[in-house]
Amino acid sequence: MTAPPNTIGVDLGGTWLRVARISPQGRVEAMERLPTDVAGGPAGVVAQIEAMTGRLSDAGTRAMGVGVPGSFDGDSGTVLGIPALPGWAGFPLAVTLRERTGLACTLENDAKAAAMGEWDAGAAKGFRNFVYVTVSTGIGACAVVDGRMLRGAGGLAGEIGHTRIAETSERCVCGLYGCWQALAAGPALARRAEAAARSAPDSALAALGALGPLSGLEVGRAARAGDATALAVVREHASLLAIGFANLQHVYAPDLLVVGGGVSDLLDLMRAPLETVLRERLLPGFRPAEIRVAALGDAAGLVGAASVARSQPDLTERDDRPG
Amino acid sequence: MTAPPNTIGVDLGGTWLRVARISPQGRVEAMERLPTDVAGGPAGVVAQIEAMTGRLSDAGTRAMGVGVPGSFDGDSGTVLGIPALPGWAGFPLAVTLRERTGLACTLENDAKAAAMGEWDAGAAKGFRNFVYVTVSTGIGACAVVDGRMLRGAGGLAGEIGHTRIAETSERCVCGLYGCWQALAAGPALARRAEAAARSAPDSALAALGALGPLSGLEVGRAARAGDATALAVVREHASLLAIGFANLQHVYAPDLLVVGGGVSDLLDLMRAPLETVLRERLLPGFRPAEIRVAALGDAAGLVGAASVARSQPDLTERDDRPG
Repeated sequence: MTAPPNTIGVDLGGTWLRVARISPQGRVEAMERLPTDVAGGPAGVVAQIEAMTGRLSDAGTRAMGVGVPGSFDGDSGTVLGIPALPGWAGFPLAVTLRERTGLACTLENDAKAAAMGEWDAGAAKGFRNFVYVTVSTGIGACAVVDGRMLRGAGGLAGEIGHTRIAETSERCVCGLYGCWQALAAGPALARRAEAAARSAPDSALAALGALGPLSGLEVGRAARAGDATALAVVREHASLLAIGFANLQHVYAPDLLVVGGGVSDLLDLMRAPLETVLRERLLPGFRPAEIRVAALGDAAGLVGAASVARSQPDLTERDDRPG
Repeated sequence: MTAPPNTIGVDLGGTWLRVARISPQGRVEAMERLPTDVAGGPAGVVAQIEAMTGRLSDAGTRAMGVGVPGSFDGDSGTVLGIPALPGWAGFPLAVTLRERTGLACTLENDAKAAAMGEWDAGAAKGFRNFVYVTVSTGIGACAVVDGRMLRGAGGLAGEIGHTRIAETSERCVCGLYGCWQALAAGPALARRAEAAARSAPDSALAALGALGPLSGLEVGRAARAGDATALAVVREHASLLAIGFANLQHVYAPDLLVVGGGVSDLLDLMRAPLETVLRERLLPGFRPAEIRVAALGDAAGLVGAASVARSQPDLTERDDRPG
C-alpha cells in the first residue's frame, strides 16, 4: 500500500554534475548541481554524487540511474571510456556507487537517457516509433523502433552524426569528411553564419558578428528581426539537417523526430524549409515525421536515467549472488 | 506427440511465383515455381498459389507465409500496392488465401522474409545484431537489432538504398540524386564497367563488353582472370558499398552484415577493399562487422516467410471472432 518510490537521476557531464530526485511520474522533485570535479577523477566525482544523493534521496528511494557521456560495460557497470573525463577507463562506477549510496545503480548512455526521459515524460510520450536527435556541438541520436530503444552491438546504435551524407565537408572531429555532423551541427552553423556575414557586411548578422563570434543564438536573433542574410543561413542549415532527417526516416521509419540540443532553439525558424526538404526526399509511402522540440530540456537526461533505473531488476540482489 | 508441422512459404515475385513446403527446421522440402500470372491479376495468382499449395502441403500443414514485394496492411492482410504487379491495391490477400487453402496466412515484406530466412536457417543464425543487405537492381535491407527485426512506422524501416551518401550521382529510380543505391547497386556497377571498358579498349573487360552489355558477371569474370581494368572497377565499387556499410554500422550497430543479391557474387573480389574502407570510416569503439554472403540464396524468402507464419498466432481463429 506504500506509494511507488522516488528514484535518483544523475547527469554526469564533463562540465556540470547534476543529481535529482525524480518522481515515479518522471517529475523532477528536487535537483542539485556542482561543477564536475574533473581533476578529482572518479573518487572525487563519486564523493560529489554521494553527498548530493544523501541530501536528495528519501526513505523510499531504492535505485539510481546515471547518464554517462561515454562507453561502459552494461553488465558490470564498469566505465570503458569518457572522452570528457580522463582517467575513468576501467572504473567500476555502478558497484562503487551502490556501495557508497546503498542504492541499486544502473548506467545509461547520456543520449539514450535523454531519449528515455522524453519518451517517459516529454515530447515522445506515447510514441512507439521516434528518434531523439540532439544537435549541438555534435549530432547524436537514439531511436525507438516498434516500442523498443535500440542499443545494438556495444550499445553503439544511433551514432548518426558520423554517417556520411556528402563527399566533402569541413573536417569532422572524427577525422573524416562528409559526416552529417560536420555539415549540420552547431559549429557548421557558426561557420556558415560567419561566411554569410563576411559576404554581406551591411546585414544585421554582420553587425552582431562585429560584437563577437556568431553562433545559433545570434543567427536566431537576426533572423527573427527579419535580416535576410540570417534567414538565408537558417534556410541553408535547415536543408542540411533535413537531408539527415530524411536518412533517419528511411533507416528507422519513425513517426516523430524529437530535436534537442542548442540548435533546436532555431526550430521555429527552420521548420518550413526543413519540412519542405524532408518531404521532397522521402520515398513514396513514407509520411514526413512530425518534428517536435524536446520538451524536458536539460532535465531529460536526469528523468530518463531515473526511469531506466526504475525499470531494472534489483542489481544489488543480483550482484550479491554467489557464482 | 506429433512432429511439428511443415509450413508453406510463398515468394510472390513480379516474374516468378514460388511455393515451397518448409520443414520446422527451415529446410526446403519441396518447391514449385511458375511464371507469375501478372495479367490474371490477384484472382489468377491466387489460383496458382492454391494449386501449388494443394500439391505441396501435407496433412499437418496449418500455416502459410507470403513474401510480398510491396506494401500491405499487416493487421488485415490487405495489399496496399506492389510496384511489379499492377491492380493489386486493396486486394485482401491473406483472407482470400486462407479461404482458398484452409491455411492461416501471414504476409511479410519480401526483404524482411529473406532476412528472417537467413536468421532462422542461414548466414545469420544465432546473431542478435545483424543487417541483411540485398544488392541487385536496388539496395534493400532489413536490420535485426537486440534480437528483434525492425519494422518501424508502416513497416518501412530499412529503406537504406535511398539514404543520401553523396551530393551527386546518376539519377536514382526514386527521382533524386546521391542515393546509396544510385551509386552502389547493380546498374551503377554496370555503368562503371562500361566507362572503364571504353577508356581501356585493350582490357579483357573491353573484350567482354564487345560481346554484349557488361554486368557484374562479366566484371567478375575479367577480374578473376587478373584484368587490371576489371579489378579497378571492383575496387571502386567496393569503396562505395563500404561507405553505405559504414553508415549502417553507425546507425544499427550490427556485428554482422549478410549480403545477398546479384552483386554479392563479387564479394570474394571486393572483400579486401570493402574491409579496408569500412575500417577507415568507423568511429573509435566500433569493430568492423563481419561480412558474409547470404547462405540460402533464392530460398531465403521462402524459408523466412514460412518461419514468420510459424511464429504467428492462428489468424483463422482470431479473424473469426465477432466484433
